[in-house]
Amino acid sequence: MFPTYDVIVVGAGHAGCEAAVAAANLGAKVMLATMNMQTIAQMSCNPAMGGVGKGQIVREIDALGGYSGIVTDETMVQFRLLNRSKGPAMWSPRAQSDRMAFALNWREKLEAHPNIDFWQEMVTGILVKDGRARGVYTGLGMEIPARSVVLTNGTFLNGTIHIGEKQFGGGRAGERSAKGLTEQLQELGFEAGRMKTGTPARLDGRTLDYSVMTVQEGDENPGRFSYTDTPPLVDQLPCHVTYTSPEVHETLREGFDRSPMFNGRIRGLGPRYCPSIEDKIDRFAGRDQHQLFVEPEGRNTCEIYVNGFSSSLPEDVQYKALRKVRGFENMKMFRPGYAIEYDFFPPTQLGPTLETRLVPGLFFAGQINGTTGYEEAGCQGLIAGMNAALAVQERDPFILKRSDAYIGVLIDDLINKGTEEPYRMFTSRAEYRILLRQDDADLRLTPMAAALGVGNMEGRQARVQNKVDGVAAISGELRQHSITPEQINGYLEEVGTAPLKQGVKLDSILARPGVSLEGLAGAVPALREFLAPYDAETVNLAEVTLKYEGYIERERQAVEKMSRLEGIKLGKAFDYEQLTALSKEARQKLNQLKPVTIGQASRISGVSPADVSVLLVHLGR
Amino acid sequence: MFPTYDVIVVGAGHAGCEAAVAAANLGAKVMLATMNMQTIAQMSCNPAMGGVGKGQIVREIDALGGYSGIVTDETMVQFRLLNRSKGPAMWSPRAQSDRMAFALNWREKLEAHPNIDFWQEMVTGILVKDGRARGVYTGLGMEIPARSVVLTNGTFLNGTIHIGEKQFGGGRAGERSAKGLTEQLQELGFEAGRMKTGTPARLDGRTLDYSVMTVQEGDENPGRFSYTDTPPLVDQLPCHVTYTSPEVHETLREGFDRSPMFNGRIRGLGPRYCPSIEDKIDRFAGRDQHQLFVEPEGRNTCEIYVNGFSSSLPEDVQYKALRKVRGFENMKMFRPGYAIEYDFFPPTQLGPTLETRLVPGLFFAGQINGTTGYEEAGCQGLIAGMNAALAVQERDPFILKRSDAYIGVLIDDLINKGTEEPYRMFTSRAEYRILLRQDDADLRLTPMAAALGVGNMEGRQARVQNKVDGVAAISGELRQHSITPEQINGYLEEVGTAPLKQGVKLDSILARPGVSLEGLAGAVPALREFLAPYDAETVNLAEVTLKYEGYIERERQAVEKMSRLEGIKLGKAFDYEQLTALSKEARQKLNQLKPVTIGQASRISGVSPADVSVLLVHLGR
Repeated sequence: MFPTYDVIVVGAGHAGCEAAVAAANLGAKVMLATMNMQTIAQMSCNPAMGGVGKGQIVREIDALGGYSGIVTDETMVQFRLLNRSKGPAMWSPRAQSDRMAFALNWREKLEAHPNIDFWQEMVTGILVKDGRARGVYTGLGMEIPARSVVLTNGTFLNGTIHIGEKQFGGGRAGERSAKGLTEQLQELGFEAGRMKTGTPARLDGRTLDYSVMTVQEGDENPGRFSYTDTPPLVDQLPCHVTYTSPEVHETLREGFDRSPMFNGRIRGLGPRYCPSIEDKIDRFAGRDQHQLFVEPEGRNTCEIYVNGFSSSLPEDVQYKALRKVRGFENMKMFRPGYAIEYDFFPPTQLGPTLETRLVPGLFFAGQINGTTGYEEAGCQGLIAGMNAALAVQERDPFILKRSDAYIGVLIDDLINKGTEEPYRMFTSRAEYRILLRQDDADLRLTPMAAALGVGNMEGRQARVQNKVDGVAAISGELRQHSITPEQINGYLEEVGTAPLKQGVKLDSILARPGVSLEGLAGAVPALREFLAPYDAETVNLAEVTLKYEGYIERERQAVEKMSRLEGIKLGKAFDYEQLTALSKEARQKLNQLKPVTIGQASRISGVSPADVSVLLVHLGR
Repeated sequence: MFPTYDVIVVGAGHAGCEAAVAAANLGAKVMLATMNMQTIAQMSCNPAMGGVGKGQIVREIDALGGYSGIVTDETMVQFRLLNRSKGPAMWSPRAQSDRMAFALNWREKLEAHPNIDFWQEMVTGILVKDGRARGVYTGLGMEIPARSVVLTNGTFLNGTIHIGEKQFGGGRAGERSAKGLTEQLQELGFEAGRMKTGTPARLDGRTLDYSVMTVQEGDENPGRFSYTDTPPLVDQLPCHVTYTSPEVHETLREGFDRSPMFNGRIRGLGPRYCPSIEDKIDRFAGRDQHQLFVEPEGRNTCEIYVNGFSSSLPEDVQYKALRKVRGFENMKMFRPGYAIEYDFFPPTQLGPTLETRLVPGLFFAGQINGTTGYEEAGCQGLIAGMNAALAVQERDPFILKRSDAYIGVLIDDLINKGTEEPYRMFTSRAEYRILLRQDDADLRLTPMAAALGVGNMEGRQARVQNKVDGVAAISGELRQHSITPEQINGYLEEVGTAPLKQGVKLDSILARPGVSLEGLAGAVPALREFLAPYDAETVNLAEVTLKYEGYIERERQAVEKMSRLEGIKLGKAFDYEQLTALSKEARQKLNQLKPVTIGQASRISGVSPADVSVLLVHLGR
């Protein structure tokens, strides 16, 4: 009844959707299996994409031909570039999404892809033949054959929802959990663990008093996630900010004895950087308020998401406490927050393509790998989907280095260090973050995707070339355009930097703190005229490149040095036990994880610089 | 945590949505409880509203202030007025809907109603105090207090999905069933039964060959369901028609031994007039083809609904058979069809307000009463919601007579005759169907709703008055406007009716078969000019009223006669056992059903005309 697919993707959340597109964009025949086609690309938690570290990932997904950026651009209701007051490595785009529009838009895009088929049913098992993944079984007992399988089960594997003292099976509120897969994978030899995450109550926006909250508007000139021509955002919706109070905390504390977090009923570890409100008031007992973001769920609904108030306290406690929040005095709830426990598989069981080491042809992506966040899930789906397709096509794998992308950092962290608690991205996880900026993900990654033959890259590639040419032209102009003190000292005084005594080139002035290209153009009509034909992204990239030239160069050299180690391959079949000069822990870890390169080996926890030297000596370097 | 609501509506399908609006429109404070707010107003089966008998109901719902007509108008993709070649009693509007847009539109409208609150969780029990419904319990063990409760559980009560030899719990594909309520209601003394219904496979429209099917376009001048100013439909989508064949039937028959319909696994009775494809080829073994309607699911999806191919045969059999249908040779499926068994409560346990006889304050509406169809469900919700609100407000109930509306016919049938199989509406169920036309539901019902104080009826009432005035003016003009043979004989010849020999009034010509008002206006410039200021609905109503004056008058007299019986009230407390002149069956049924009027008593199966005479004599008539 089914053809043999190149890739079956199980689950249609952020990871599954990107996996399907990524494989399909490489020409693979894809089956996307989901329990319910009406919940494709559901945002299970907050209605937002991007943020610090995460926004960079969405840009990277877009640069590689994924759809998360385009879908977000087409359905967002607010856009902000966070951290604008800091250096450009920290600039992070973030969008409020229209939850329903986001999901519908994703579904439309998937249906429009000729290489993607759909099956609406629960997948209950992996078909394994001769040790390889060869398809899936469904709840109806059907067998869908394939050359590879990508599992993106999110929080559905044996999902258990907790609210106060009650617990029940479920993959999300109102949706049932998935059974059987974990048990089969364990039989195949996989180690499984348990994690938890949570989500706040949803409120009736008609019952909130916004007049006592702080308005948070979108950017005046909202940006975009995609490097393509997505439509500019008009008619933004505001968010609002309010705060908890000692009274709110007191009310919440009254429910602690009934909390599954504190009475031991929840065993899985939750996301440290997205804690529940009870966690926050427990851990930071000295703080008498916490910020809450009141986020709209979309353009045509009164439903409200209370970012910062995730909770698994009993529903009556959540209610009483929320009613004490400023502006929420007459609040009505649509549903309480809850915690959810689900199965994950420690990601040290994966290779850098996200293929499992135990079962060739079987890939894992998203929360099943112990991560949290839509963006983290999406980029794993992209990498797993691409590599599943490449493997079927018997081509080289596609692996991003830590210096290529946040995606590279994320996967390298996961497979080498594993994770005890839900892993989320931060800019601090990247050692080369001045190279991994949100403004140049296209320059970094689009040429790679184009070289691989990812579909519809011609236009993107041409844009990248345009941008590169523009940056070169603008840099050239600034490097050769001299300016006199008379022309520029007025502006320099304005921005509080020392006046010129003699003429200099424009690039040397731009390097000064406080001086911007826009400011220079304002003071130098010829420069303004020169810049006029270039789009804002190109001008911005030229400015960042020139202003931070020194930092960028330094990081490039560091990457260079490291890449020599990365370039040194380690044999997969090598038995590290024979290398007795290695520490015992290093031997064990290396045998267990089988790193591909010296660089990767060096980042395994338990492998010391001394161990790395032993490896280098052994390899004759 | 919750205020005491006037009305809690359980379930947010067609019945639940209309119930919430109806109660809210009468000023009641309403809580709409649904397992999942994202599935509010899901069309569980075909993406269409209206049809023969059903389209009239949607018009009636609209005339009473319900939203089904408006939502349909705003989201439909095709409109047809069926049966146009027959008399106006048979004209039936039908729309293809955009499934997702329909649901979203309903949700927006409900959220926009200030009297409706929402709670997203499973309701697991009714709170009964002193024999009255006083609220509900939820899965979390919460208690939501109320003065009345409307249950609209659809197919969710102990729902069991069947596909071939497999069966599993579920309320719809991918959604879990509801547990606990049936058992509680049985403990309260309710009799429960089991019904079944089914739905066809969903197909990937990208894999169908439309070029070999017959196109079915919408009407050239598409009409609307609502009597308000909903936007006219532009840019219609076509449906397509194809056929099964002996090969298709042969393939299906090969799966009969694995069919839950034929091997006795399904015990509930299914809808006779919406049979599964296996039923059809079994019952009509002589027919070598059945028509299939290939219906789009919406504007932005490739999903296809195959109307006419409902099935619970094993999925591989469905697949093989569908692939043999003309145009489906390369078909891919999104999911197979299935049958679903669910609990219902024989509706003879209800009064004419849809309040249960056993538990005051508890109302049932929709499939829980043994009906099938969105429209049937919606109108029951409307009546239950209105009467729940009226009861709370200690006002007289709102009961539609069989001569008022199809809604009256439906409820009267249900509560007096009960139903063994899913009940659906047909024009043939109405004895006064020339009075219950789709073109005058507003004249019949809007004044009643306005008199009751249903919200926002001023504009509608003014429109009705305009229409009434317009019809009177047009009729007056036609009755007094004389025409000469010279003026009209050309037209009369054209339409094949005898020429005039002398001048007559226009109304007498209009009465002739084949003569239309439009035709007359074409031939008589003064008439055309006279009609110009009136809208199409008014002109059409004037024409129907004049053309069918005789029939209408005859039915009015029949209603008159019957209404004398309807006007004779029977005491609720009356013990029919004392009336030994009644037949034993009549005594039992009357004591059981406690009809409100003689008319209602006369329609109870088992109450003969002789029994009615006994009642009349007893009441001194």
